[in-house]
Amino acid sequence: MPLLGLLPRRAWAALLSQLLRPPCASCTGAVRCQSQGEESLQVAEAVLTSQLKAHQEKPNFIIKIPKGTRDLSPQHMVVREKILDLVISCFKRHGAKGMDTPAFELKETLTEKYGEDSGLMYDLKDQGGELLSLRYDLTVPFARYLAMNKVKKMKRYHVGKVWRRESPSIVQGRYREFCQCDFDIAGQFDPMIPDAECLKIICEILSGLQLGDFFIKVNDRRIVDGMFAACGVPESKFRAICSSIDKLDKMAWKDVRHEMVAKKGLAPEVADRIGDYVQCHGGVSLVEQMFQDPRLSQNKQALEGLEDLKLLFEYLTLFGIAEKISFDLSLARGLDYYTGVIYEAVLLQTPTQAGEEPLNVGSVAAGGRYDGLVGMFDPKGHKVPCVGLSIGVERIFYIVEQRMKTKGEKVRTTETQVFVATPQKNFLQERLKLITELWDAGIKAEMLYKNNPKLLTQLHYCESTGIPLVVIIGEQELKEGIIKIRSVASREEVAIKRENLVAEIQKRLSES
Amino acid sequence: MPLLGLLPRRAWAALLSQLLRPPCASCTGAVRCQSQGEESLQVAEAVLTSQLKAHQEKPNFIIKIPKGTRDLSPQHMVVREKILDLVISCFKRHGAKGMDTPAFELKETLTEKYGEDSGLMYDLKDQGGELLSLRYDLTVPFARYLAMNKVKKMKRYHVGKVWRRESPSIVQGRYREFCQCDFDIAGQFDPMIPDAECLKIICEILSGLQLGDFFIKVNDRRIVDGMFAACGVPESKFRAICSSIDKLDKMAWKDVRHEMVAKKGLAPEVADRIGDYVQCHGGVSLVEQMFQDPRLSQNKQALEGLEDLKLLFEYLTLFGIAEKISFDLSLARGLDYYTGVIYEAVLLQTPTQAGEEPLNVGSVAAGGRYDGLVGMFDPKGHKVPCVGLSIGVERIFYIVEQRMKTKGEKVRTTETQVFVATPQKNFLQERLKLITELWDAGIKAEMLYKNNPKLLTQLHYCESTGIPLVVIIGEQELKEGIIKIRSVASREEVAIKRENLVAEIQKRLSES
Repeated sequence: MPLLGLLPRRAWAALLSQLLRPPCASCTGAVRCQSQGEESLQVAEAVLTSQLKAHQEKPNFIIKIPKGTRDLSPQHMVVREKILDLVISCFKRHGAKGMDTPAFELKETLTEKYGEDSGLMYDLKDQGGELLSLRYDLTVPFARYLAMNKVKKMKRYHVGKVWRRESPSIVQGRYREFCQCDFDIAGQFDPMIPDAECLKIICEILSGLQLGDFFIKVNDRRIVDGMFAACGVPESKFRAICSSIDKLDKMAWKDVRHEMVAKKGLAPEVADRIGDYVQCHGGVSLVEQMFQDPRLSQNKQALEGLEDLKLLFEYLTLFGIAEKISFDLSLARGLDYYTGVIYEAVLLQTPTQAGEEPLNVGSVAAGGRYDGLVGMFDPKGHKVPCVGLSIGVERIFYIVEQRMKTKGEKVRTTETQVFVATPQKNFLQERLKLITELWDAGIKAEMLYKNNPKLLTQLHYCESTGIPLVVIIGEQELKEGIIKIRSVASREEVAIKRENLVAEIQKRLSES
Repeated sequence: MPLLGLLPRRAWAALLSQLLRPPCASCTGAVRCQSQGEESLQVAEAVLTSQLKAHQEKPNFIIKIPKGTRDLSPQHMVVREKILDLVISCFKRHGAKGMDTPAFELKETLTEKYGEDSGLMYDLKDQGGELLSLRYDLTVPFARYLAMNKVKKMKRYHVGKVWRRESPSIVQGRYREFCQCDFDIAGQFDPMIPDAECLKIICEILSGLQLGDFFIKVNDRRIVDGMFAACGVPESKFRAICSSIDKLDKMAWKDVRHEMVAKKGLAPEVADRIGDYVQCHGGVSLVEQMFQDPRLSQNKQALEGLEDLKLLFEYLTLFGIAEKISFDLSLARGLDYYTGVIYEAVLLQTPTQAGEEPLNVGSVAAGGRYDGLVGMFDPKGHKVPCVGLSIGVERIFYIVEQRMKTKGEKVRTTETQVFVATPQKNFLQERLKLITELWDAGIKAEMLYKNNPKLLTQLHYCESTGIPLVVIIGEQELKEGIIKIRSVASREEVAIKRENLVAEIQKRLSES
């Protein structure tokens, strides 16, 4: 192998890069960082050791995957596939089309769209072409697509990976590479009909996934801004204060207040006025109440937002989901591009799940209206109003996996229906012919890749992988033109005519 | 909008980067390059113009996507979904598990695995962490996964994007971001059984996709190397000459010969000896013939390869696919990591497709055995033998799309089954109630997001998007407790009781 001669040099380079690497600046997950540090030291030691006994064995490699990422094992994939199928079929039920965009965009496409979070973007190395960044969400690429193709109307869904260089806190199932599932409606329509449908979709998906009880917080960016104006926040601080308010689901009010006053220079009395509002949440009656609010009702923007929310609640009642919705003045949403209704779905820990490990549940779906984003990409600033939602599938995957673990549920990672076995030596040829018959009939079938496997090994393989049926062929069966079919669960065996094999198996599979 | 103030500066920056950008070094697709150049000039001009009439309108943006990439429209997605479904269901039929790896790997994981092509890797910018590169294929990440998790046995499939900075020649449907569909069997098994199954899978998929006639070229790296040794190629030049031979399906022999002699310093008589071999192709009889070849039969490696091919043909006969296979001494495969059997499936232009536009068909599936790759990642060099295949789905998508274009076939991009319409004004509430009933029963339904749409607009929407059924509700229907169901194709309408709506629609949908 041509590579072998280079190995020691590569191992040294790896060692040096490990030792010279600065302490991980972005990682706040202390547990992980420590264990990684230990791992590095161990690896470095191992490399040194291997250098000492050079040529005795291959020097130690550092096999790792990038920080904050992970492989998805077959177990993960089965859970994901089921959840994504349910999500996508809901999107299709509402008439959405699929689409995809490249994993990276021109850097310029993504800049100044995400507010304070922009620093978390992954840039590609300048290899003598354009400056590129990995996509940070699916919304900005969608807006770019609409503007570039001059599409004025579109209902689409998009399932794909996005990348953010966030401090990976693995415990909460947060990664630097993760999957997003978005549904958006672009186009000029009568108010609140598409917005209400987005909330209906979130309800259908969360009910369908049976994650337990949930509710959806709703607010409107115009009410947020109107509230800021009414409280006396200077307009230049709107987005910064908005991003502080957005942290209220993770931080206590006093810490958010401190951030606004100490870090963002807000007057304490202004902060306190905001504090009064952000404690308000309720149903449609709170909307009515806010119409009467002396400060808010003076603000044109806020009034527009309240009018729309009132209409929204009317449609939500017709959709039968109004009781799931909570008008919540503390909801702000961090991203810069929202312009109207915003929402965020939250799971509730139900009492029936008390026996389970406590889960850090939280936002599992979110979205809102962004009427200005497409116009940012249009040469003449032509706007295409949009509203959409994103299902927090990574958190959902995590919750479902944890529940399965607690319940001790196992998943099959293959779909194999039939196993082809033999008790005889030198029966490979017959097994190959038999399995060909099954494959060609569309039956999912496996056999062991051995000339002379033991029958017990073969049956054990079926039990451990959950294959329900075994067909058995041996000297005797071959002579008599029959095949034995064995049910793995009941261990019952029946003999059938060889020519009826496919029909018999299809019959059994359709019954089960 | 806070962005507006920055626009002129950004537009100038974009203009400068356009004007100062060096001529595109990697792009050989002259047509595209020229048109891009023109586009840049036009854009530059437009930006200048917009600077002159500053503040009159928003300066011109350059909306583009990265070179060599593209968006996948709903039309593309429908074709892809169908093809991928067929491919994945074949992989599952053979007992494969799904898995996924991150889009990027540590750069070191990928280096020295791909031979001459390594320069085409996309690197990520060093943002103060690890050095990362986008994955170049799915095979090396799979090998890394096996080694890292000490998995000794696994049959898995993986569908995902990979990235290569190749000169984009869009005409042939070749992009810098593309989808790969891989199936691999890892583990120590009896010889040639998994290898034969890989060829069987390729046959099942290509037959299932009905792309026309095809055949699969088969060779063995040990025969290639044995042939080189027998012809007098110095061992240090094996991989370089191998990569020249690999070009024989795109280049004439005389050009390949020239490359080997002039660029790679091979003696002309050695090249000519190779030339004699690489013209040979045939069935199992050619394998027998090569056993008798005076030079090849002296070479231990080549003999091992020939023995294995003989066994392979035996299994392929049992699988009923031997007539699809051609032992071809010109097949070399470019990637460094192959160690045994290699194969490549090629589509034939069938006479029945003579009316179609000529397609540059070629390799649509390929793979081989790589017994050393996992060991490269293992600290002690422990090997896990692997064999696998990759379906060239991008080329297949392209072929299918071209055929559909030629035949004028259209695809529906949504799956909507029922449209909720009204001939009446102010009937939004009733439509919303009705559509909720349908959605909640799992029926795919749409309506227009308008308070008062015209009936004709609503019916036209169904015709243009292919929705088969319309349910119509108006004043009269509401009063009588009925609903009209209209078949879009036949334009027939029937009235049914409102309470039977869901059942009636489900009946009609199951019949169609």
